[in-house]
Amino acid sequence: MAARILTLTTDFGSRDYYLAAVKGTVLRLAPGAQLVDLSHEIPPGDVEAGAFFLAAALPSFPPDALHLAVVDPGVGSARRMLAVETPHGVLLAPDNGLATPFLAAGAAYSIERPDLYLEAPDLGTGGVTFHGRDRFAPVAAFLLAGGGVAALGPPLEDAVRLAAPSPRRSGSRLEGRVAHVDRYGNLVTDIPSAWLEGAIALEASVGGHATARRATHYAELAPGEAAVLPGSLATLELALRGASLAHAWAVGRGAAVDILLWRK
Amino acid sequence: MAARILTLTTDFGSRDYYLAAVKGTVLRLAPGAQLVDLSHEIPPGDVEAGAFFLAAALPSFPPDALHLAVVDPGVGSARRMLAVETPHGVLLAPDNGLATPFLAAGAAYSIERPDLYLEAPDLGTGGVTFHGRDRFAPVAAFLLAGGGVAALGPPLEDAVRLAAPSPRRSGSRLEGRVAHVDRYGNLVTDIPSAWLEGAIALEASVGGHATARRATHYAELAPGEAAVLPGSLATLELALRGASLAHAWAVGRGAAVDILLWRK
Amino acid sequence: MAARILTLTTDFGSRDYYLAAVKGTVLRLAPGAQLVDLSHEIPPGDVEAGAFFLAAALPSFPPDALHLAVVDPGVGSARRMLAVETPHGVLLAPDNGLATPFLAAGAAYSIERPDLYLEAPDLGTGGVTFHGRDRFAPVAAFLLAGGGVAALGPPLEDAVRLAAPSPRRSGSRLEGRVAHVDRYGNLVTDIPSAWLEGAIALEASVGGHATARRATHYAELAPGEAAVLPGSLATLELALRGASLAHAWAVGRGAAVDILLWRK
Repeated sequence: MAARILTLTTDFGSRDYYLAAVKGTVLRLAPGAQLVDLSHEIPPGDVEAGAFFLAAALPSFPPDALHLAVVDPGVGSARRMLAVETPHGVLLAPDNGLATPFLAAGAAYSIERPDLYLEAPDLGTGGVTFHGRDRFAPVAAFLLAGGGVAALGPPLEDAVRLAAPSPRRSGSRLEGRVAHVDRYGNLVTDIPSAWLEGAIALEASVGGHATARRATHYAELAPGEAAVLPGSLATLELALRGASLAHAWAVGRGAAVDILLWRK
Repeated sequence: MAARILTLTTDFGSRDYYLAAVKGTVLRLAPGAQLVDLSHEIPPGDVEAGAFFLAAALPSFPPDALHLAVVDPGVGSARRMLAVETPHGVLLAPDNGLATPFLAAGAAYSIERPDLYLEAPDLGTGGVTFHGRDRFAPVAAFLLAGGGVAALGPPLEDAVRLAAPSPRRSGSRLEGRVAHVDRYGNLVTDIPSAWLEGAIALEASVGGHATARRATHYAELAPGEAAVLPGSLATLELALRGASLAHAWAVGRGAAVDILLWRK
Repeated sequence: MAARILTLTTDFGSRDYYLAAVKGTVLRLAPGAQLVDLSHEIPPGDVEAGAFFLAAALPSFPPDALHLAVVDPGVGSARRMLAVETPHGVLLAPDNGLATPFLAAGAAYSIERPDLYLEAPDLGTGGVTFHGRDRFAPVAAFLLAGGGVAALGPPLEDAVRLAAPSPRRSGSRLEGRVAHVDRYGNLVTDIPSAWLEGAIALEASVGGHATARRATHYAELAPGEAAVLPGSLATLELALRGASLAHAWAVGRGAAVDILLWRK
């Protein structure tokens, strides 16, 4: 039998001991688990960026995977902990909006199992709770060992959801925003690629710059040329061949994107 | 049987081939080993930061884990190689102070097994020894395959220890230093949280700034408010809600921390 | 039986969902595969840096490993996909020069198996192909499940090769270049260490700076002293004790390196 997969998505970065402590605790309580690092570079405390990441990443995983996501600026407060059933496996996350993309389709449970929670390791005279290590990790181990998600706590109907501004279209105008800037400086928008259907020309504007070039992949473009392309998340992207468009146009996440269409 | 765990903690960063060469060598000599990345972003050559990291990270791991740590500014010199027995598994490290947190409690052995060491791979006309790849990796593989730590070499009584300045307390005054600045800009001190016992008020000073606010978790604080909190390593932390205190106060590792207490 | 190894080398960085999608797809199609991160910090689109990395990293791996490398500025164009047999396992890569170091010695195949390729996951109204996730990952899964490399497509004789400038020697003069700057700021050159044989003295120049110091390891040097050393890749390195020589001399990859030798 293949080891059961636990993916890890956090804003812990790569310099602190936080991630190591979570990994060690899971492997101590659920020997043989297969840990899979997805990203630990979610911007610190940026729940919205974390939700975007999970929406893009999890659909590639099999339904028996387990996912732990920790981006938790309210850690230590009374915010609840969630387990959400998704078509790509169970997601464990703080109830702060991080699980938003999966709440519409899957059952959510409040995690209420103090019997599973750990004391902080004895590193001196007693530390305080580190939720990733002392609560989420043992709950993950419980599920990795075969525990059922419904045994974690009662169904939860009012999980916190991020109020994402939705893209709009009216006549020949599409309005959205930059949902993510990727490593290459591409601007990933929230405007569905399908909304271009039937258009014979377009002009896309963001941050005071504009392009009328439409392409299907980067290699079509001349160096330095900006264009609108369909992205791998089924939304439109704006990109520059061979350089960062985010840098060239000084545009970041959240910037408004306007697209005018001409149809036959 | 679960694959035996080998954790990896280095200052190799993520752009060079050094980590890949260590991983490949371990997997070639000990197929099936489970490699677990802890951090490769220990600041280059910073043995003290590496020791702090290991002290915080290893206690979460089970006693049958194996840990390899390489932060080794003196690589190539005559410095020895260590295997240290800890309650959280065996730690392999250069004898340069990196293993300091575990030397008081566990037996240490000098690694003297030239029969295990490898030649540099034939990448041309012969390379020089890369200790991570050519010495530590095969020694790790020997242990992963069931070899005993005492077979590595003679017990070593005079392992190199870092002379860490210890926190002090006298009357109503606690003195320590910033032991670590984490990703969120929190100042992790070396002052035990337990030393606040009985205090009804405090004032903490570092780098010319001060706060009298005491909290138990971040979510209690108003945005922009600085406070003293008990940390997950059983020492006090100074933090700012929603931003980096290290940045706001321009404070780095090593800065002196003074706390005045008022008791009933 | 040990899980079959799949190493991953990309320019995806650690903030985007690209790597997670590749990992998820492989684990969905080939449960139990052992994923090994080598580096995801190849500079974006830098095929030459990726080829250097692979040449240095892969020789440590066993012959039954599988390697996926994606540095692909021409993604989406008609560039082919390659499978290359190497003594250290099979390498999957775009046919853009990334596999150059392994083309001379091993058979290469063009990957032409549209029956293996996936549609983009249904994340809305249909995304475009992301080659890492939708083509390379399923091909890797096919090989991990026991498929043969020759079944991927016809042998390919004209794979794209990078035209690497070769180091030269004439009489007492060696000429090469900085092939890589590592995390510590060491200048890794492409000049074979063996070319120093018989020399009793040398002077190495790069970027308008020079050193006549020759050493065998860093620990020999005084702090601040620059020297020429044999490196772990069988080529010469220039390094500064305790600091970055690349920074001190303001030298980057590609800089010309001149070495004058004196022989008895």
